[in-house]
Amino acid sequence: MATITSRNGVDVDRLIATIGAVQSDANVASFTFRATSSWETGGRNHGEIGAFEHAGTPTADRAEPFRLVGDEPPVLLGTNAGPNAVELVLQALAFCYGVGDVYNAAARGIEISELRYEVEGDLDLHRFLGLGGPRAGFSEIRAKSWVRSPHATQQQLEELCQYVQDTSPVRDILANPVPVTTDLVVLD
Amino acid sequence: MATITSRNGVDVDRLIATIGAVQSDANVASFTFRATSSWETGGRNHGEIGAFEHAGTPTADRAEPFRLVGDEPPVLLGTNAGPNAVELVLQALAFCYGVGDVYNAAARGIEISELRYEVEGDLDLHRFLGLGGPRAGFSEIRAKSWVRSPHATQQQLEELCQYVQDTSPVRDILANPVPVTTDLVVLD
Repeated sequence: MATITSRNGVDVDRLIATIGAVQSDANVASFTFRATSSWETGGRNHGEIGAFEHAGTPTADRAEPFRLVGDEPPVLLGTNAGPNAVELVLQALAFCYGVGDVYNAAARGIEISELRYEVEGDLDLHRFLGLGGPRAGFSEIRAKSWVRSPHATQQQLEELCQYVQDTSPVRDILANPVPVTTDLVVLD
Repeated sequence: MATITSRNGVDVDRLIATIGAVQSDANVASFTFRATSSWETGGRNHGEIGAFEHAGTPTADRAEPFRLVGDEPPVLLGTNAGPNAVELVLQALAFCYGVGDVYNAAARGIEISELRYEVEGDLDLHRFLGLGGPRAGFSEIRAKSWVRSPHATQQQLEELCQYVQDTSPVRDILANPVPVTTDLVVLD
């Protein structure tokens, strides 16, 4: 009988099988993710994250989409019904680093007992308000990680942290330019 | 008595007052936003988005932080307890565009009666899995907007859409590089 090898809550056998599947068929690594939003009022929008495509085929992994609310705080003319868009991006970087740390630690035989992130970003609103000035988005993003491992050395954890930065999908799209196209359909 | 001018659910008088405040004191446009995460197990992390700094001072706008769960779908070795990190980024772009459309429409006297977004991104997992290949993050992001306005012309709505793209904080940080620093603290 096969033994299930779980480390950090990650099924290491499945992780290795996934790597093997991608090596056999490059298309297995291909995903298209998707999110939708509907405006409600003022700064408030309702979001949904549901099906995605894997290897060109829509997945049936999620019977119901995840629902999110986006809004602005009062100082930005909203009603604080949810986080704002730039805060969600910081959260996404924290989540991405967290998954990268834990999956790669599992693959390397490193046990993680505690892992936290704090991510912050500086933003100047001049351009959004039509007043020119610096770039519209974050001028800088700073992430800080706290990690505890019962057996790993400082050097092993530093190497893991560097590797995760080098392979993080969210860090990549923040640190490097992504082509973004935006199409408009005017409804009658 | 002053009349409250609300358009698209946006307090236009406050919007104009905010622009005036930033013109009088550039520091009023300065924000530092923040998100934290704590790892739970496997690909699942708990996130919180709470206080931020405005003009160098922590705000008290939120008594309680917003709580989010990040996870991966089963095909990515998770349990589907929440959206994954790259999906959250797509959601953030949809929310950012939505707020930009509605606030700028309000400022321009354009009434919006319906506004929806769909945002998708293509991602190849080779690099995340340590197999080299293309970039770790999205190779391309495509946004599509559906907008309805009772009075605005097609040209007005096209100009609005272009202006929002040019001033969107989330589009900016995806389309252009942001410096990202990541520090590690190893706990005993």
